[in-house]
Amino acid sequence: MKLDVEKLSSTSNTIYIADLGCAVGPNAFDAMQDVVHFIQQKYTLQCPQSNTTLQFLVLFNDQPSNDFNTLFTSLPRERPYYAAGVPGSFHRRLFPESSIHFVHCSYALHWLSKVPEELLDKNCGAWNKGRIHYTNAPNEVVQAYASQFAKDMEEFLCARAMEIVTGGMMTIIMPGLPNEMPYSQLAASLMYDFMASTFMDMANEGLVSEDEVDSFNLPIYTPSPAEMASVVEKNGHFSIEMLELTNPASLVDGPVDIKAWVIHVRAAMEGMFIKHFSTDIIDEMFDRLTKKLFMFTEQVESGYKDRTQLLVVLIRK
Amino acid sequence: MKLDVEKLSSTSNTIYIADLGCAVGPNAFDAMQDVVHFIQQKYTLQCPQSNTTLQFLVLFNDQPSNDFNTLFTSLPRERPYYAAGVPGSFHRRLFPESSIHFVHCSYALHWLSKVPEELLDKNCGAWNKGRIHYTNAPNEVVQAYASQFAKDMEEFLCARAMEIVTGGMMTIIMPGLPNEMPYSQLAASLMYDFMASTFMDMANEGLVSEDEVDSFNLPIYTPSPAEMASVVEKNGHFSIEMLELTNPASLVDGPVDIKAWVIHVRAAMEGMFIKHFSTDIIDEMFDRLTKKLFMFTEQVESGYKDRTQLLVVLIRK
Repeated sequence: MKLDVEKLSSTSNTIYIADLGCAVGPNAFDAMQDVVHFIQQKYTLQCPQSNTTLQFLVLFNDQPSNDFNTLFTSLPRERPYYAAGVPGSFHRRLFPESSIHFVHCSYALHWLSKVPEELLDKNCGAWNKGRIHYTNAPNEVVQAYASQFAKDMEEFLCARAMEIVTGGMMTIIMPGLPNEMPYSQLAASLMYDFMASTFMDMANEGLVSEDEVDSFNLPIYTPSPAEMASVVEKNGHFSIEMLELTNPASLVDGPVDIKAWVIHVRAAMEGMFIKHFSTDIIDEMFDRLTKKLFMFTEQVESGYKDRTQLLVVLIRK
Repeated sequence: MKLDVEKLSSTSNTIYIADLGCAVGPNAFDAMQDVVHFIQQKYTLQCPQSNTTLQFLVLFNDQPSNDFNTLFTSLPRERPYYAAGVPGSFHRRLFPESSIHFVHCSYALHWLSKVPEELLDKNCGAWNKGRIHYTNAPNEVVQAYASQFAKDMEEFLCARAMEIVTGGMMTIIMPGLPNEMPYSQLAASLMYDFMASTFMDMANEGLVSEDEVDSFNLPIYTPSPAEMASVVEKNGHFSIEMLELTNPASLVDGPVDIKAWVIHVRAAMEGMFIKHFSTDIIDEMFDRLTKKLFMFTEQVESGYKDRTQLLVVLIRK
């Protein structure tokens, strides 16, 4: 990989690493340990004669509402870096100018900064009636999502371009959609579609109002490699070192564990549902959703096995 | 003040500031705002022609058990610095080598890293029977406290000496004892003495065991300016710019508000009591303590009005 650690460490022995969207660990700790080892090895290769020991400060970032107390008390006692937490949205500036050497952002950028406003406008073609996502939605809805993602990415890249030193590296891992694949073929789409139809069933039974469902939309977007390349090129501050779809390691072997999957999705999304629906409604919806997914196991399996993880490695020009 | 901001900013436009023992704000936010303005003004004075805008990263430090969630959600929205939280004991290393330009530590260093072990040894002259502090204690007890403080300060200064750049500044504010004043004359001593006698009353009434009281000691120490000067000189890495006793601003006017004082002390210390005593015992003790203090208002007032805040300004050599 084209990371010039010798150059990065030329003005200071300390390498500043940011993990954006760290949640509460422990994945973040493993990732940061790997990043530190990667940079150390690169340095040893580049400067075999050096007597300098590199030092690392890892800045763990997430929204101010993230549970940093849990993150801090579960930090590994033995770790090859100093640790700090940084609260704030990564769509804005988090760090001083040219102060960061390496940024890692894993499973965070598919969260849009907000639901595209058009989806709530009844007089607009992008009104997302009866759905909670762009799965199987009219083109206007898909476009509203895509353009929100492009805006968010541009803000994200602009902020990082200010913060990352020349030659610094950024790795992004997130859900991805193969260039030619219809979005509806992904397992996640199936799940969002089933969520919507479950909500609509519940609306028909009077458990929830149609308005409540119509006004709820998931701020989640899955880009294709081509889309990602396009936003990076438009921004202009980064060169693309790598941009590829891979299989999420956890999905390579064995059948889909639908129950575990629903629990995982619920843990990640519950906060959003709670803001909009009552707890009873959410319990009921997830119960029904699990049953639906079991009825369509085969379809779920086929989407689930696809190579749907986007790995992007960028270098600050 | 002898802070050479021009020199500090010569290798980077970013000034790194650490606030050690920040708790959950808002005092820490006010202090950091002041520090940033002080450095900005100094820079404008020193470099009136400069086009550079200094940037600031404030690293808020406290124990990992501190409520960083509250700290992070109450950070001022408009602030002249980037903010991070750093969990860990300031008796050990927190930051990379030579990475910090300014350290502020307010009302934190009077907390010892632990209770001196001798106090619990029944076969030792420093066994602190019937007391919970060194107020009115035998010389061996006072010495045990003083030497723990010296050890802690040495660890603190060694760690900071590694972290602070040459020319960097450290300000310490903490309770202080006038050089010639007996410790027992301070208002805080009176309070600790009353706490101990309250516990002993309760032991006599069988509400708590004597052993429980004998094995409890407050890990708090109030040094004199002479003692502080001595630990700094022994460490050798800092020059003393200022070392003086002042009156805490909050104490300058008006009579002592005993109830508010007890609430304040309880808030700061309750965690320690809870580890050792049951909640009922603590409620009862603080009720009785408040009554005792009211009975000795005059004595409390006299101690309370003394100039007992130590202000230390150090420069890293």
